[in-house]
Amino acid sequence: MDFRELMTVRRAVRDYQDREVPMALIREIIKDGCEAPSGGNMQPWSFIVVTNRDAIKRLSDESKKNILMAIEKNPEFSFTKYKPILEMPEFNVFYNAPCVVYITGHKDIRSLASDCALAASYFMLSAADRSLGTCWIDLGSVIRDKEVRAEIGLSDDHVIGATLALGYPTAVPARPPRNEPVILKVVS
Amino acid sequence: MDFRELMTVRRAVRDYQDREVPMALIREIIKDGCEAPSGGNMQPWSFIVVTNRDAIKRLSDESKKNILMAIEKNPEFSFTKYKPILEMPEFNVFYNAPCVVYITGHKDIRSLASDCALAASYFMLSAADRSLGTCWIDLGSVIRDKEVRAEIGLSDDHVIGATLALGYPTAVPARPPRNEPVILKVVS
Repeated sequence: MDFRELMTVRRAVRDYQDREVPMALIREIIKDGCEAPSGGNMQPWSFIVVTNRDAIKRLSDESKKNILMAIEKNPEFSFTKYKPILEMPEFNVFYNAPCVVYITGHKDIRSLASDCALAASYFMLSAADRSLGTCWIDLGSVIRDKEVRAEIGLSDDHVIGATLALGYPTAVPARPPRNEPVILKVVS
Repeated sequence: MDFRELMTVRRAVRDYQDREVPMALIREIIKDGCEAPSGGNMQPWSFIVVTNRDAIKRLSDESKKNILMAIEKNPEFSFTKYKPILEMPEFNVFYNAPCVVYITGHKDIRSLASDCALAASYFMLSAADRSLGTCWIDLGSVIRDKEVRAEIGLSDDHVIGATLALGYPTAVPARPPRNEPVILKVVS
């Protein structure tokens, strides 16, 4: 698809068909994610793919628990507005997505947050180009429990840089409004 | 341009024609940057555009000075490998780019690094789609001096999330090799 069209077609999808994404297709989208630029071309990203529904539920529960604890400690935390929904036991932060992909990397990489976001950007555009939907879900990114980390192969020295739901959308939502660009200064 | 083609055409450009980029075009590319997704759709980014060559040189000198001081303090700093080139007075971290764009935002936004990287990704793809070149230049991102910050309108409560050179490329470099994707685990 033409980039300019794709840019407006890609939307955060929060409702998915009950249909698995073939692993070969997931691998292709990950490969496109790796086309992104990275600091010093270090390509510091690695990927974790979770398609098991029970595992996805465990990840959702683990992340919800940790975020609720963080809100308890610091009510000023930006996630506090999500407290009511996080307290609902049936709420799955990944909605009904059949696949969750974590983009991770070594905690000591200075540019890791930016690099993972760049890879996530290419991943999301590539998925949209293939008529798949994605959603970056920070609410599913706080995974601390040793057993849960071990289950997904996330070692102590790795951090999660991006958390992405992936699946076939039920419907692609309307484009939410964009603010006019804020240009603080032009030094000409 | 087709996204799949654009993905491979976009390259980090480090040599630019001596040709200004029209301000209207810079504004269009910034607008495309704002099409990127952001945490909670907060769109926390704002932009600073610098096309004045003397100002660009001052920004380069300021950032080089601060990075060299950081290397002095901590030789393990990942930028240490750039020390010899940073010590050359004639080296401009922005090469000969006619335009530098900073993507910034309020320091308290939790997802600012990721959000700015997402906007940068769309910015770089949009520029490539218009036959312009970009390069993310972290070496030009450490701006501390009060006067230099004031000159570009960067207030104390704002941090730089992405630093981008923009211009017409002399030549588009070859695609540097990409590693095979690292998939740590598939939980199926």
